[in-house]
Amino acid sequence: MWTIHEESFQAQAQHHKETIFTIGNGYLSTRGAFEEGYPGDRRATFVHGVFDAAPIVFTELANAPDWLPLVVLLDGERFSMDIGQLTAYARTLDLQTGTLARRLRWVSPGGKAATISFERFTSLADPHIALIRCRITPEFEGTVEVRATLNGNTDNEGLMHWRWIGQGALPRSSEHKRGSAVFLHNRTRQSQIDLVSAMRLVGVMGRRLTEHFWDVENAPTLSMTLAARSGRQIIVDKFVSLATSRDGSDPRALALEHVNAIVDWPAALQANADAWAKEWERCDLVIEGDEEAQIVMRFNLFQLLIAAPRHDNRVNIGAKTLSGFGYRGHAFWDTEIFMLPVFILTSPAIARNLLDYRYLTLPAARAKAKASGYEGAWYAWESASTGEEVTPTWIPDFRDRKKLARVWTGDLAIHISADVAYAARQYWRVSGDNEWMRAHGAELILETAKFFASRAEWNAEAQRYDYTDVIGPDENHDHVNNNAYTNRLAQWNLQTAFQILDWLQQDAPEKAAELIQRLDLSAERLAHWREVIEKLHIHTLPGGVIEQFDGFLQLKDANLAEYEPRTRSMQEIFGIEGANQYQAIKQPDVVMMQVLLHEEYSEASRRANYDYYNPRTDHTYGSSLGPSIQAIAACRMGYAEDAYEHFIRSARADLRDVRGNAGDGIHAASAAGTWQAVILGFAGLEITDDGWRVNPRLPAHWKRVAFTFFYRGQAQKVEVTNP
Amino acid sequence: MWTIHEESFQAQAQHHKETIFTIGNGYLSTRGAFEEGYPGDRRATFVHGVFDAAPIVFTELANAPDWLPLVVLLDGERFSMDIGQLTAYARTLDLQTGTLARRLRWVSPGGKAATISFERFTSLADPHIALIRCRITPEFEGTVEVRATLNGNTDNEGLMHWRWIGQGALPRSSEHKRGSAVFLHNRTRQSQIDLVSAMRLVGVMGRRLTEHFWDVENAPTLSMTLAARSGRQIIVDKFVSLATSRDGSDPRALALEHVNAIVDWPAALQANADAWAKEWERCDLVIEGDEEAQIVMRFNLFQLLIAAPRHDNRVNIGAKTLSGFGYRGHAFWDTEIFMLPVFILTSPAIARNLLDYRYLTLPAARAKAKASGYEGAWYAWESASTGEEVTPTWIPDFRDRKKLARVWTGDLAIHISADVAYAARQYWRVSGDNEWMRAHGAELILETAKFFASRAEWNAEAQRYDYTDVIGPDENHDHVNNNAYTNRLAQWNLQTAFQILDWLQQDAPEKAAELIQRLDLSAERLAHWREVIEKLHIHTLPGGVIEQFDGFLQLKDANLAEYEPRTRSMQEIFGIEGANQYQAIKQPDVVMMQVLLHEEYSEASRRANYDYYNPRTDHTYGSSLGPSIQAIAACRMGYAEDAYEHFIRSARADLRDVRGNAGDGIHAASAAGTWQAVILGFAGLEITDDGWRVNPRLPAHWKRVAFTFFYRGQAQKVEVTNP
Repeated sequence: MWTIHEESFQAQAQHHKETIFTIGNGYLSTRGAFEEGYPGDRRATFVHGVFDAAPIVFTELANAPDWLPLVVLLDGERFSMDIGQLTAYARTLDLQTGTLARRLRWVSPGGKAATISFERFTSLADPHIALIRCRITPEFEGTVEVRATLNGNTDNEGLMHWRWIGQGALPRSSEHKRGSAVFLHNRTRQSQIDLVSAMRLVGVMGRRLTEHFWDVENAPTLSMTLAARSGRQIIVDKFVSLATSRDGSDPRALALEHVNAIVDWPAALQANADAWAKEWERCDLVIEGDEEAQIVMRFNLFQLLIAAPRHDNRVNIGAKTLSGFGYRGHAFWDTEIFMLPVFILTSPAIARNLLDYRYLTLPAARAKAKASGYEGAWYAWESASTGEEVTPTWIPDFRDRKKLARVWTGDLAIHISADVAYAARQYWRVSGDNEWMRAHGAELILETAKFFASRAEWNAEAQRYDYTDVIGPDENHDHVNNNAYTNRLAQWNLQTAFQILDWLQQDAPEKAAELIQRLDLSAERLAHWREVIEKLHIHTLPGGVIEQFDGFLQLKDANLAEYEPRTRSMQEIFGIEGANQYQAIKQPDVVMMQVLLHEEYSEASRRANYDYYNPRTDHTYGSSLGPSIQAIAACRMGYAEDAYEHFIRSARADLRDVRGNAGDGIHAASAAGTWQAVILGFAGLEITDDGWRVNPRLPAHWKRVAFTFFYRGQAQKVEVTNP
Repeated sequence: MWTIHEESFQAQAQHHKETIFTIGNGYLSTRGAFEEGYPGDRRATFVHGVFDAAPIVFTELANAPDWLPLVVLLDGERFSMDIGQLTAYARTLDLQTGTLARRLRWVSPGGKAATISFERFTSLADPHIALIRCRITPEFEGTVEVRATLNGNTDNEGLMHWRWIGQGALPRSSEHKRGSAVFLHNRTRQSQIDLVSAMRLVGVMGRRLTEHFWDVENAPTLSMTLAARSGRQIIVDKFVSLATSRDGSDPRALALEHVNAIVDWPAALQANADAWAKEWERCDLVIEGDEEAQIVMRFNLFQLLIAAPRHDNRVNIGAKTLSGFGYRGHAFWDTEIFMLPVFILTSPAIARNLLDYRYLTLPAARAKAKASGYEGAWYAWESASTGEEVTPTWIPDFRDRKKLARVWTGDLAIHISADVAYAARQYWRVSGDNEWMRAHGAELILETAKFFASRAEWNAEAQRYDYTDVIGPDENHDHVNNNAYTNRLAQWNLQTAFQILDWLQQDAPEKAAELIQRLDLSAERLAHWREVIEKLHIHTLPGGVIEQFDGFLQLKDANLAEYEPRTRSMQEIFGIEGANQYQAIKQPDVVMMQVLLHEEYSEASRRANYDYYNPRTDHTYGSSLGPSIQAIAACRMGYAEDAYEHFIRSARADLRDVRGNAGDGIHAASAAGTWQAVILGFAGLEITDDGWRVNPRLPAHWKRVAFTFFYRGQAQKVEVTNP
């Protein structure tokens, strides 16, 4: 249960499969496009932090110079699966080692046949290197040529980000008997980030006839021609390295150093496998009795792990990881609310890097608040290299070229600041990392609290505080007042600020005094915070139903079951304006709030809200963020059937491409949420202030769930079985 | 007086100079970027009609695969003017033959020196071919390598339009002893236009040591290494051809045929020179006594001639010709009102092609009218391959990322339909081409008239017809009512429709009957047209001043002289909203109307309006379309000093880059308008219904003006001298 397998080549599913077969190592990821390239493929390598300016979306991860190109020619005929005959084909992603392998047999239009395999991996042991091994067993006598290119002519769906700076071949040294290095130096057009790629082409098996370096600008190419003997295997390895000016002042030297340090394929493969073994020892989640759930869990963990920054705290994980062009590499609350629980529990060092990113982007969050007349830190709804708001403000309306759609989340989704604070608090509670809380976390929680206090509006008539004109998790309704999720999380942020400040004053009085001084936490200000906490408006009906926002319960009612079967979202069915007028929500909102702050609500309250909102939520075509949260809520409610239905829907988002958009990249929040549904839902792990416990509610057909997590720096092994 | 010269290499003026040194042949144009390439250059080749989809601007001319790359290496050191030492440099564009030559001496960082020259031209004799000759005289013993590439990795300011389809090398045939051909096949991503480029690299002088074909995807490269002997000249020629699927069903065969048909450099150069000699015999304009005016005239004619479609009536000339990225290759009224007079008088066949384009895009113009509820033909303000409206509707506001600016010309500039009809009528009047008027022109004039009749709004209160919510030539004021230019040209279009219909009924009664039937020109409809003509509102004051639009004369007055000296447009000084409130106009509007319909206004009326509007027009930083028209008006008024001032301002638009934006491409309307200012202004050529006459008013320092023009198919030679 460690492999993702493909039995045939389907051109029409190419983009989906490129996402699925993405490999990576936390420094870079490469989509599963083919070495030889096809028209319309979305081949891409994304390197963390390498953003460049783009229209409409402000900035995007630049598709790096392409390290994949490896062209094979049989007696001069270029191998391509869309010509000749493909008589065998299989592709396998081994999640245990992050190795992607393709094996096929091809007969050229001219009748030359060969069995060809390509294996590739990006090393988890050395994040700067990537390797391809190509094996060819000809069924003819003649020549086989292999051409390896570093291609700087890449684009992001048509937009070029790179300029050519230089390239060259190093003289063959005695130290490197085989495959002297060639390099390519590029620079992003706007952000001026340098990236140097380097490669060696090594003939391992087969008689070499000629070797050439083709010094073509922005596409340096190494060509090797070997003698083809029928039945005799040829092996050629392409060793690649990448380094950027984000990694050091001389990326050219760095890239050459790493590419020259590759001893051979077996050694590099072993080092990578060893690194992955440690990763899985820490993270693996075993599910027995449900093969689909098992493979999805490992696939999801794999996709999260290859996108997770291990050595860099200046970057975050985009909503589509590093696996596609969707959302342009921008990070959302998806990181804090969906992905961070996975890392907090399995990989505390990664969690800390991700939270450091938010700490390091506090200046931008402060600037965003200030620009709107508020204090404290208002995080960007979409965040990239600096933390500046990069949510597009307008997007084209493809139905009417004279129209544009205004995107409001960057203006209205204030809950992001509380989501970040919530994750910081969770990390601290689970890890017990007081050093981080003192140095970074406290300031972050205090500054977001300060924002929420300044953003609260005094309603003199009702004698209460409101947040008006916001958008909550449910994006079917915008420009709403007093969204319960937003108000409760803001209130929680303010309450938590007091707890953290109390703790800090005992734990590190000097740091507390410094923060009180620097952040101007005067007695008057803190008194105001208390008043906001006390008088913040959240409307609860006598039966326990919490109104999602002012007036929600007066909207036209909608039982979504009546619209089944359907293949469109409720927002599409009602129209954007229409959806605003119905009690039809895109994803859990009140229910999500109760999942996050589970301990603070009675079972009666949770049941009342689940029962009210569940039938009004667009689980099938609403947000991909919804089903996993709904699954956790259903588990905790004891709704076993519901829970599994929501879980499996979430589980299928990428591998089965249930929404048809997996070609844009992995649904990272869904992938992480699905893991949460198993751990927090079915296994029932609960972390409290004084420890942890499990309260298992496994699906009936599951036999056993086993996993490891970290609590206060110690690995905890959990095993849950069905009776 | 036939050359444009550059004495030194100035990196900061690179984009301006690329525009100035553009060469072309009416099929394609290539900007004057350098063979070896520099970071940030705007190298581009545009082929007529090769549009592809682009965001915001809908469609743009795709920067074609680059045929220029020719890299020279002296003993392995790559020639580049930004390293080593450049001890001599000169660049010359010979307008007489369209040949661009660069001569320089370079010393490499390693101390290898050589004199190097590059000459290039795109043949006017065979529009599919382009040639580069490179001469190298080394001052060392060793090797010289020359690398020639066809580069498919081009972009339009970052946007990629091409996919790679294929490439290859043809086996050397006995027929082509030297330089066997290599080809590259690309296809535009959206519009699916195929373009095949092909090349041969021919060693003409020098001992060849090695020759290689580097088959790198999308950048096929031919490399030739020659022995360097001090003082011995080496000559290598790069022969290129381009063909597209717009030219025939097999562009690959076409490109190969043309590249193989090149015998050698001298023969191709001679054929090109012969073709240019015929061109200049037809078009040259001699000015004695004013060297600047002379060279500008030849430069402007050259730039118009290389952009003018000779063999294709499905394309138009963009506002920046084929010489830059500005306005994306879109055609405006600039063609009909500014450029067509040049072609009508000097090159009737080109004029006919350009007018055919409008005839062929009648379906799109009808669709545009219909979509807004009107009848007849409403031409696109910006027109590309189909005639569909491609004016951007929204453009980003770079000062505030949350704002967008709405571009209104596509919605409001209805005068374009009358401008097209005006040019059709002018062509007919000058050429006497009755066949064209019968087959194409009449329908065009009747359909635009129909549009203006249906667009006219009955004002019951004032008992008149209005055109409300329009924009006239002066774009400082939009959403205006009864713009005099628009109303008068619309009225003229309706009047002309009756004249044409009368003529057609006598000349070709069957065609007339067919059009009356097909266009539904019922007696009721024609009666309505007469009523619109009669009751269309144009407001003239007792003193003769015609109000530019309703309420213009009540706007705040502005004497622009009071704002001098300035370096910004009045619109920038007042702001877009502010400019709307002042009598400060961007270019002649009422004056322009009187220039076009000169015969219909008394001298008193023209003087009153010139005197009123001249000081209120932003001649220096308003539209580049203004000064030439103002010069003609001033000439006709006898304002000699004014006339020359406006003329020379117009003349300097490109060569002196007075507006700082010549890097975006040639100001085609200004270039053509400057020519009009000489012919219609200073020489005073007048075409009437029954012949032509000249009424010269040469500037005092001019000695002689001589030119040829075509009247009713016969060349007319005009010579005007100052007494």
